[in-house]
Amino acid sequence: MLRRVLCTVLFMGALPSLAEVSQGHISVVLLGATGDLAKKYLWQGLFQLYMDQVSSGHSFTFHGAALTALEPGQRLMFDVLKKLACPPDESPNRCAVLKDQFLKLSQYHQLKTAENYTVLNREIETLLRQEGLKEAGRIFYFSVPPFAYTEIARHINSSCRPPPGAWLRVVLEKPFGHDLESAQQLAADLTSFFREEEMYRVDHYLGKQAVAHILPFRDQNRQFLDPIWNRHHVERVEIVLKETVDAKGRTSFYEQYGVIRDVLQNHLTEALMFLTMELPANVSRAEEVLQCKLQAFQSLRGLNKNSAVLGQYQAYAGQVQEELQKAQDYISTTPTFAGVLIHSDSLRWEGVPFLLTSGKALDERVGYVRVLFKNRAYCTQSETLRDAEHSQCKAKQIVFYIGHGALNTPAVLVSRNLFRPVMPEGSWREAVGQSDLHIFGQPLSDYYVYSPVKERDAYSVLISNIYHGRKDFFITTENLLASWAFWTPLLDSISHQPLRLYPGGVENQHLLDFEMESGEVAFTLAEAVELLNPNRLTPSDYRTIQSKFRQSPLVSAWSEDLISQLASDIEKTASRTVARSGQFHLALSGGSSPVVLFQRLARHHYAFPWKHTHIWLVDERCVPLTDTESNFFSLHNHLLQSVRVPYFNVHPMPVHLNQRLCVEEDRGTELYAKEIVALVANASFDLVLLGVGTDGHTASLFPKSENGLEGAQTVVLTESPVKPHQRMSLSLPLINKARQVFVLVLGKGKHDITILLSRVGHEPKKWPISGVSPSSGQLVWYVDYEALLG
Amino acid sequence: MLRRVLCTVLFMGALPSLAEVSQGHISVVLLGATGDLAKKYLWQGLFQLYMDQVSSGHSFTFHGAALTALEPGQRLMFDVLKKLACPPDESPNRCAVLKDQFLKLSQYHQLKTAENYTVLNREIETLLRQEGLKEAGRIFYFSVPPFAYTEIARHINSSCRPPPGAWLRVVLEKPFGHDLESAQQLAADLTSFFREEEMYRVDHYLGKQAVAHILPFRDQNRQFLDPIWNRHHVERVEIVLKETVDAKGRTSFYEQYGVIRDVLQNHLTEALMFLTMELPANVSRAEEVLQCKLQAFQSLRGLNKNSAVLGQYQAYAGQVQEELQKAQDYISTTPTFAGVLIHSDSLRWEGVPFLLTSGKALDERVGYVRVLFKNRAYCTQSETLRDAEHSQCKAKQIVFYIGHGALNTPAVLVSRNLFRPVMPEGSWREAVGQSDLHIFGQPLSDYYVYSPVKERDAYSVLISNIYHGRKDFFITTENLLASWAFWTPLLDSISHQPLRLYPGGVENQHLLDFEMESGEVAFTLAEAVELLNPNRLTPSDYRTIQSKFRQSPLVSAWSEDLISQLASDIEKTASRTVARSGQFHLALSGGSSPVVLFQRLARHHYAFPWKHTHIWLVDERCVPLTDTESNFFSLHNHLLQSVRVPYFNVHPMPVHLNQRLCVEEDRGTELYAKEIVALVANASFDLVLLGVGTDGHTASLFPKSENGLEGAQTVVLTESPVKPHQRMSLSLPLINKARQVFVLVLGKGKHDITILLSRVGHEPKKWPISGVSPSSGQLVWYVDYEALLG
Repeated sequence: MLRRVLCTVLFMGALPSLAEVSQGHISVVLLGATGDLAKKYLWQGLFQLYMDQVSSGHSFTFHGAALTALEPGQRLMFDVLKKLACPPDESPNRCAVLKDQFLKLSQYHQLKTAENYTVLNREIETLLRQEGLKEAGRIFYFSVPPFAYTEIARHINSSCRPPPGAWLRVVLEKPFGHDLESAQQLAADLTSFFREEEMYRVDHYLGKQAVAHILPFRDQNRQFLDPIWNRHHVERVEIVLKETVDAKGRTSFYEQYGVIRDVLQNHLTEALMFLTMELPANVSRAEEVLQCKLQAFQSLRGLNKNSAVLGQYQAYAGQVQEELQKAQDYISTTPTFAGVLIHSDSLRWEGVPFLLTSGKALDERVGYVRVLFKNRAYCTQSETLRDAEHSQCKAKQIVFYIGHGALNTPAVLVSRNLFRPVMPEGSWREAVGQSDLHIFGQPLSDYYVYSPVKERDAYSVLISNIYHGRKDFFITTENLLASWAFWTPLLDSISHQPLRLYPGGVENQHLLDFEMESGEVAFTLAEAVELLNPNRLTPSDYRTIQSKFRQSPLVSAWSEDLISQLASDIEKTASRTVARSGQFHLALSGGSSPVVLFQRLARHHYAFPWKHTHIWLVDERCVPLTDTESNFFSLHNHLLQSVRVPYFNVHPMPVHLNQRLCVEEDRGTELYAKEIVALVANASFDLVLLGVGTDGHTASLFPKSENGLEGAQTVVLTESPVKPHQRMSLSLPLINKARQVFVLVLGKGKHDITILLSRVGHEPKKWPISGVSPSSGQLVWYVDYEALLG
Repeated sequence: MLRRVLCTVLFMGALPSLAEVSQGHISVVLLGATGDLAKKYLWQGLFQLYMDQVSSGHSFTFHGAALTALEPGQRLMFDVLKKLACPPDESPNRCAVLKDQFLKLSQYHQLKTAENYTVLNREIETLLRQEGLKEAGRIFYFSVPPFAYTEIARHINSSCRPPPGAWLRVVLEKPFGHDLESAQQLAADLTSFFREEEMYRVDHYLGKQAVAHILPFRDQNRQFLDPIWNRHHVERVEIVLKETVDAKGRTSFYEQYGVIRDVLQNHLTEALMFLTMELPANVSRAEEVLQCKLQAFQSLRGLNKNSAVLGQYQAYAGQVQEELQKAQDYISTTPTFAGVLIHSDSLRWEGVPFLLTSGKALDERVGYVRVLFKNRAYCTQSETLRDAEHSQCKAKQIVFYIGHGALNTPAVLVSRNLFRPVMPEGSWREAVGQSDLHIFGQPLSDYYVYSPVKERDAYSVLISNIYHGRKDFFITTENLLASWAFWTPLLDSISHQPLRLYPGGVENQHLLDFEMESGEVAFTLAEAVELLNPNRLTPSDYRTIQSKFRQSPLVSAWSEDLISQLASDIEKTASRTVARSGQFHLALSGGSSPVVLFQRLARHHYAFPWKHTHIWLVDERCVPLTDTESNFFSLHNHLLQSVRVPYFNVHPMPVHLNQRLCVEEDRGTELYAKEIVALVANASFDLVLLGVGTDGHTASLFPKSENGLEGAQTVVLTESPVKPHQRMSLSLPLINKARQVFVLVLGKGKHDITILLSRVGHEPKKWPISGVSPSSGQLVWYVDYEALLG
């Protein structure tokens, strides 16, 4: 059959000669050949591939496959194939001939049993032998539900691998798991059947023309973008996919996934990566691109529940009840709208907000990636006299318009006061007209507008890239897992978050507007109805209470308020001390409680006199400073790297001398004691921050400790009952010389020791914390309600 | 005479009773009583003071003084006094009576000789004795040219001081010097006559109602501003004074001063301080305010010539030639327009651009302080459907409108989507109407607009504050010197900068628009005519050339291009090395040449893998690390504090051990050598950056050095011929183990050694740099044209 095809093709003249047909043969197997996706996009994409590549030197056969028996399957499939469209830019004659060939090269197979796969493999081999063709490769396109993946993968691996020298490419459709764990499981399963380079995971957004052009655009316009593609110039980035449709009819899928898994984790995240990744020297080298993309994932700052605002359209619950036969009072916690604020901690993007937004039942259908630049100009002439066309004081933006919306076409828009972009002439052309349209706050005439010469469906773009082996258009395992690793903590933390209900469509008005604040987001309108936890208590409903604990002042509140009070008290002490003496000596404890405090200090205290602050450690574990167990390492990560304490003012404990840890003869304790004496007046710290262990230990002074509870030694080596056992610590007498000592106690776990401490006297050998009693300084207890009240 | 006055006043009923007149008497002496300022503002201000304070319990006399003889002086002065206006809000009857009293309480004195001052003093004393009044204080208002200050000050100090228990206040008008040195001189002169608390230096901007309200506004609106008055929320601040008039008729003054000294150093800087300073707990305590203001000065980042754009209106040169009898070809270098970009390095304001702009012969007369906030909102609804009134996506700004311009009144404007401000009801009222006006890109109806209940002239505000002893409305010596210390380096560096000529008025068009870029500013339109140095060569006219020097690659260019090439080569090496081995070991030299490189790396290289870079020192001076002579200190200031190298990756040389410097037995060199061996594979640095001294030294290896030129020791102590003599340095053999060595040579001063080096062979004892020859690594020379070509 194939030989006949080739002859006909030759007869057509414009088509390949036999000499060219030497690149070998490619067999394409479409699994799920009669399914929705195949009907709507995949067959058309394969036909497009055939039209584009018929002269490439490769020959093709197309194998549709499904569970359906041969005859009905065949009928179903050919019904689809007969409806394949000729693209508008193709000559109708050529297309008709090619379509005819395509149908002849296509065949239906039932693939159900192991035997079926063996047969398919034999047929391919036979055909190739008969036609005398060398095999170039095989493409297996999985357009099937994910539960079927493993079974099919096993069969392909065991029965359908091409002979050595020919490649295998398996194409997988999402969902690729539901969270990090399931994605890892699925990836592990697949890895047992296929090599990484054999797998092509589809995110069809990477085939959208505007998205696919982000990297080439950045590459071709390096000269303009190099100086401005960074935090100094970019004000914000919006990555948006708005839909007008709702989830009706698809709730069985949607109820399990929701908008973040459906759109943000994959489509919008991929666009984000194209924007934030460092540009490789050569953007057409897939490996370099994938490498840079992976690095961009590593720079993303972790998300928490306050990184997102979530909504659900009002009709959703009813649809779920109906379609999934749930009770009338069933409440769904699946978000259908999400706005997420993402930050990258790379030097290039630090501080730039990336807003990812998507939702169903919104006011319009549109997708875009919008980079808004800061206004860097001052226009001396008054507004009324400015020449609007050339004014640098107008908004500057670059928009990758994915489709639909006001423009109703993929497009790339660049503000005219920015630069005239370099665009590949063959594939993008400048658009004209439509100047009365306003888009992103400006008339369309303010932009250079480019649209594709040929509008191409995402799947046809992707199928072409599978053929060309361009792995950078697909999601590698590393990429996939990096994305899930990024999103899973958010998904976990919001699973019981309240959702804002919205009516849908234009009636949403301002209900879904949201605002950024200190790296978090919240809906702008506060008073709207919240679906879940309507009666939950917020910490700020309670006021900080002040009282006495062990004869010293006690500050108590819910932990969030307590930390903010403590941070602001520390700042006040610091400012006062610097005003008085020019410097502030602060000794900080390790452990987990202070971490929240460090973060609060790093993000909210702009007036803190860091430049004049010396940072000392109260205690340290005998591990290298770069060990994640090190107190200093935690302090560095959560505080020091965000503020500007001069290098000279940072005083880690010398637990690591002469390449060994806390060896007595290295005299680390003496060294630290000397440093304190040299820099801190009277060795009296301005402020010491302590914690309390459930056993009553403080600093690294444990019950029955031989060192540090009394005596002249100011810095001591101690033993902890828990690992790592060896510690270095300030001594109790030194701590008691401080001008102020704050003790922070957080959490239910500390309730018992708190109660005990409220009753016992001065017994440092039993409970070292009870020995904290500044000789002439002040002691203040910061105890949260959970520790205090249990 | 005074007694009569008091009786009349009593007769009026509404005025003070005798019992209240017990606060004592105040004598106001206005020096320069017949001058322009006195005529235009000061007498009116004193009259206003009298009207306001007649019931305060103080009694007053007003003494006009000038060099003019008694009789003509008297006549001149009373001509002015008779024209004093009654404010519109004052009842005409009361005003007429008070004006009559004011005239009777006023007297003219000739003050020329020492004797005159003695007489004045005696008259005041006599009057007080006769009337039986206690003296509260004396105000001397210097409305005279600055050259007369010292003489008058001496007389007042020696003859006119009030008796103990009464205060003295001397009021001084600008200019207060011409630069830091002259201001220090003038301040020192005055300090020998007056105590700091006696001096009131006037900046009349501090009396402008909108400027004077900045701090109260910040204080009264703390609840709204606290979260947003910082770098995370403020996009930019503009402080602007535009004038339509030119300098015609005033060139003799203007030619010496120019726009920066005339407007920016004083008026606009003071407004800047009110915006940027931390708010004291109590804004009505002058001392706290002044203290915070001074701290704000300390946070300002230093200016350089690229911090400013400068212009001169075209007619200016002709006006100077005519008025100052200069030759036809006389060129003035005095700027009449300036735009200056200022940054504060405080944690609150880091990165926020403050643009100070002023000029003559512009298109409009207007003054304002505008704080533009970042847009923190994402509005989910499409633009066309947004409710404009409440949208958070509209611009958010707070404007202190000083006067003139479209509004033609002082005002405070706050965007309605920001907050409704708290305003003091007695003095500011909400304005209505005029909604068709557009201001700062928005209709006036988008703002809450407040204007003063009573519009008050700046001088009357200031005179009232002198009376109340509110020193925070005046410029203290410290404040003045801090301002000059800030501006003088810029003034010095721009004295020969090219000025952009502008036609004046509306014809300026976009000619004076300017843009910010990496902390610098430049005019947006590049092609305009430049007045001075029209033929100067710009570095970018030349391309970097590549060649050979001492058998190794040579990169040469003008220094600016060379540095940028070097920085980008270092980044490339770093990225490559990190990609290969996960870390990058960079050893940097001290000295002045690398400083520009450090700054370039800090500001332009966002993709630099700092997180994986280890920083080592090539050499160090034996001084504490915090000494300004320390190489590490310079590296810290110019690079480390701006980038995020982890604390653990920074390796200063241990020149300071056991509280002493470079003592052999402390084994600092061994310690550093061990650290290198422990962390750097094969002790082979990835990149060593060296410089060359005019004597051929490199690192701290000097000609005829006993250590470090050969042998096994990798880190050595050496002696420098110049102070500080003691040094620590990597040895030549260690340097030669590096994978790459870059040598940077900059400036004419290095021309001779460059020529010499191009001729000599390997003679490290004579010229240590000639011994640099990496055994298996690469050596590259970066030599600028000045060093290469002389």
